[in-house]
Amino acid sequence: MDIGIFGTGIVGQTIGTRLIELGHDVKMGSRLPENENARAWAKAGNKKASYGTYKETAAFGKLLFNCTAGRGSLSAFEFARASDLNNKILIDVSNPLDFSRGLPPTLTVCNTDSLGEQLQRAHPLLKVVKALNTMNVDVMVHPERVRGAHDVFICGNDAIAKAAVSKMLTEFGWESIIDLGDIINSRGMEMALPLWISLQKKLGTNIFNFKVVK
Amino acid sequence: MDIGIFGTGIVGQTIGTRLIELGHDVKMGSRLPENENARAWAKAGNKKASYGTYKETAAFGKLLFNCTAGRGSLSAFEFARASDLNNKILIDVSNPLDFSRGLPPTLTVCNTDSLGEQLQRAHPLLKVVKALNTMNVDVMVHPERVRGAHDVFICGNDAIAKAAVSKMLTEFGWESIIDLGDIINSRGMEMALPLWISLQKKLGTNIFNFKVVK
Repeated sequence: MDIGIFGTGIVGQTIGTRLIELGHDVKMGSRLPENENARAWAKAGNKKASYGTYKETAAFGKLLFNCTAGRGSLSAFEFARASDLNNKILIDVSNPLDFSRGLPPTLTVCNTDSLGEQLQRAHPLLKVVKALNTMNVDVMVHPERVRGAHDVFICGNDAIAKAAVSKMLTEFGWESIIDLGDIINSRGMEMALPLWISLQKKLGTNIFNFKVVK
Repeated sequence: MDIGIFGTGIVGQTIGTRLIELGHDVKMGSRLPENENARAWAKAGNKKASYGTYKETAAFGKLLFNCTAGRGSLSAFEFARASDLNNKILIDVSNPLDFSRGLPPTLTVCNTDSLGEQLQRAHPLLKVVKALNTMNVDVMVHPERVRGAHDVFICGNDAIAKAAVSKMLTEFGWESIIDLGDIINSRGMEMALPLWISLQKKLGTNIFNFKVVK
């Protein structure tokens, strides 16, 4: 499938490389036509990797990933034409982290709203599915690196979109996907980040995840 | 041990009853000397159960539990004499839930502060340990009701207090206690509530918990 990735950082690069391994064609998008990260990533990949602007990336992808820093996500998607977003699926893996107050980071939006909801409101015909934001990127694309059963949460308003995202997560190796319901549940998914950060510090590793036990 | 419980709701009642089962003497405190819940709870218990004002409860307990609704926690502890709080341990199980905006509840404080931190700041010589707030009360006191391994998080500024709280949690049956560090980590513990609420709705039960998997 042709997949567009918004964002050129380590999350976008890691997901992009994994998608190419899985046989997809991937365009990595950024604000400007030339981006050092995106160019280096595309060069290291095979012919299935390309890069371009956010606008080109939205046009290219049949499925889109939001891997931008959460603070910049809303403005990134303003570069896309509405006709290139409408009826497409966006997998939003980002977190609205704010490092400007120091460590630990806070969230730029939480409690009564969330980045997932903001993206959905800004682009009503885009099918936003929040997913994969509650773990490190290496765990996102290689869940087998965590030993034992563990869960990925998803939420969104469109059941067909969530089924397609679940299929993609299964390609990554996910065996347990918990659909929390509509996009309002991205509040809880994003607000789990401070606990994740506390645990990262405590455990001294990024390679861990949550399991819901009944 | 003589234990004081602030709060007369289902959380205070359930923890109080469990503490009595474990051989402790428990006083349940409320704002006014006579409280219907507290009187009924103490009557159903044996001679180890009593009730009184917050002030009397603080004086009675060698160890204190905060089981008040989070919105009322700060004002509840204002009724206690400083001399009855200083150097004591407070196990803060509460969450600052705000139902006034409808469902799902939001938090009255989060992101840049937390109820655990507010209680610690208001009573600098009280040893606040946040614990047990990320699960239903039946799981708090009977962790064996969840099948399989799962975790309870604690945090606080005083290592000796956390060791004492860990001992109490072990009495309840907890086998895996994760000390996240100082009291600032109560932000993450309290902000886990929206995800817990989403999961409760999804799973249709209160009897579940998180396990951190490495």
